[in-house]
Amino acid sequence: MSVLTFIGAGQMASALTFPVRKNGHEVRLVGTPLDREIIEEAKKSGFHITLKRQLPEGIKYYQIEDVKEALEGCDIVLNGVSSFGLDWFADEMLPILPESAPLISVTKGMLDTEEGDLLPYPFVLEDRLPEGKKLDINAIGGPCTSYELADGDNSHVAFCGRNMETLEFLKKTFECDYYHVSLSTDIVGVECAVAMKNAYALGVTLAVGLAEKRDGKIGAVHYNSQAALFGQSVREMTQLLELIHGGPENIIFGAGDLYVTVFGGRTRKIGTLLGRGLTFEQAMEELSGVTLESIVIATRTARAVRKLAERGVVSLDDYPLLMHVDSIINEGQPVQIPWDKFTFTVK
Amino acid sequence: MSVLTFIGAGQMASALTFPVRKNGHEVRLVGTPLDREIIEEAKKSGFHITLKRQLPEGIKYYQIEDVKEALEGCDIVLNGVSSFGLDWFADEMLPILPESAPLISVTKGMLDTEEGDLLPYPFVLEDRLPEGKKLDINAIGGPCTSYELADGDNSHVAFCGRNMETLEFLKKTFECDYYHVSLSTDIVGVECAVAMKNAYALGVTLAVGLAEKRDGKIGAVHYNSQAALFGQSVREMTQLLELIHGGPENIIFGAGDLYVTVFGGRTRKIGTLLGRGLTFEQAMEELSGVTLESIVIATRTARAVRKLAERGVVSLDDYPLLMHVDSIINEGQPVQIPWDKFTFTVK
Repeated sequence: MSVLTFIGAGQMASALTFPVRKNGHEVRLVGTPLDREIIEEAKKSGFHITLKRQLPEGIKYYQIEDVKEALEGCDIVLNGVSSFGLDWFADEMLPILPESAPLISVTKGMLDTEEGDLLPYPFVLEDRLPEGKKLDINAIGGPCTSYELADGDNSHVAFCGRNMETLEFLKKTFECDYYHVSLSTDIVGVECAVAMKNAYALGVTLAVGLAEKRDGKIGAVHYNSQAALFGQSVREMTQLLELIHGGPENIIFGAGDLYVTVFGGRTRKIGTLLGRGLTFEQAMEELSGVTLESIVIATRTARAVRKLAERGVVSLDDYPLLMHVDSIINEGQPVQIPWDKFTFTVK
Repeated sequence: MSVLTFIGAGQMASALTFPVRKNGHEVRLVGTPLDREIIEEAKKSGFHITLKRQLPEGIKYYQIEDVKEALEGCDIVLNGVSSFGLDWFADEMLPILPESAPLISVTKGMLDTEEGDLLPYPFVLEDRLPEGKKLDINAIGGPCTSYELADGDNSHVAFCGRNMETLEFLKKTFECDYYHVSLSTDIVGVECAVAMKNAYALGVTLAVGLAEKRDGKIGAVHYNSQAALFGQSVREMTQLLELIHGGPENIIFGAGDLYVTVFGGRTRKIGTLLGRGLTFEQAMEELSGVTLESIVIATRTARAVRKLAERGVVSLDDYPLLMHVDSIINEGQPVQIPWDKFTFTVK
């Protein structure tokens, strides 16, 4: 039995307590300053107020002020914060984490560098380690929504990191009959495959709104245009993976995550609103101005590709859908799917 | 203005009259012996009884006995029969088609050879030409459902053939503001990308039935498992494309067509029934024993891969989902998704 300390008690981290508890490990769930109410209620009743599920028996709950106690003697630390909490995690948590326990991070995303490289979060966290500190930093990628994980639906994800021995230990700890884990030292490949889908999910769901607008009926369903955009997305994602020298097997997670993202959540909502004809600002207003991770990541991906194009490494013509999505969200352009740029001629 | 003779008045061929008529060309729609009622009603009212749409104005309708009249002076012939009608088309129609008019075929699919090669229908038709006869044979692939095409939804398809000049002529004739056409001389790549999706659509929709069975509720929706199967499908399809030396751009049509097929039609229905726990025979009974093209094509694809494995060209371990689908439909095996075979380790 291992001891796992989860920092961040959001939906995804909390859903991950299910396979880990099923495997009989000890789980200490620590709320961030934003999770205070979640921990309060869970301490009382074991009910998670945003995941809307009764959490597994036997979890120990901690408010953030008790994080050091929760870290004592732990074998694995899980970073459960979203990308918006990453600075907090780097500043406040990295310094106090034990070097003896590997870290595994559910935070999806990447930063783009001046040179147009896409930097996955495990590398970002490594850069933010206090001087002299060593930490084995790993990450989880792949299509897995928290509700369904909590309900025991079959999911296939990837754990990535530098050290295969650590990855195998993590897999042994997390994997169960419904949570299936691939392992990869190709951190860039896994994380970028997963991050890219954010821009493209928005791109595919534009078709949902466009169809509703054309038919004058909310809920009108058209698949030809969605399929065309989905196919274009997979093509551009495959090219992006090649560009960053990510392994081709990662398309499993890119295409799978795109599929699951098209079906729900706020990215679909905003794509649909844009397709209906709202400006980006109006669409964001409808979502009460919540900053979406997907928008941030789409912007970074597009910015990286633009920089690579400036350096002559790629041609922007190979990424017409990504560029269109970027022009909508960052330049206020109207939706005007560039169909002509999708068609090709192979002689 | 060109004159187009469509042989076969099924839903897809008839939907294609919309872009062609929009471009102002003459369309002569000829029913096969199975389309007698369709042509009868269309002659009277212009209404297509299975497409359930009013066809464009100005189409000339013919029963099969008048096919020679319909072919007189035409510039393009469209073969609109399904793969089950292909023998009839080869035996009865190929001999009477004018050599001066290129043929374009909507029939999706391929045959597998003794050697394990997958032979797209344009090649099959070429082989069936009467001795000495020359015909420029082309084909249409890509995600495009007939109803939505008839309604003017945006679609992106590929026209493939040996002769780029012909392909450009065909594109000029068919393409319009909602029907977007790529051109390719990579016939094997386009046709196989499109054909492969049949097996995989069945594979993905197993998850729909499995979720319903687990929840004991028809209509229960779970995306994690669908996403995992979708991602695995795209991975195996990418490998298959490479294997047959098809261009990577064709994943647009493979992934797009998979997406659209997962959402509807009889392939989803049978995948769902199998996932719920019905045997293949029971599932086919529910569908009144109608032989599905998707089942036939799935079987051929799996058979080809098996033969290639026997010859040591591929490893069956790289196609666990295709092999599982094949074992269900051809060996009466129960659904037991081989999750462990999907996970991988990249060191």
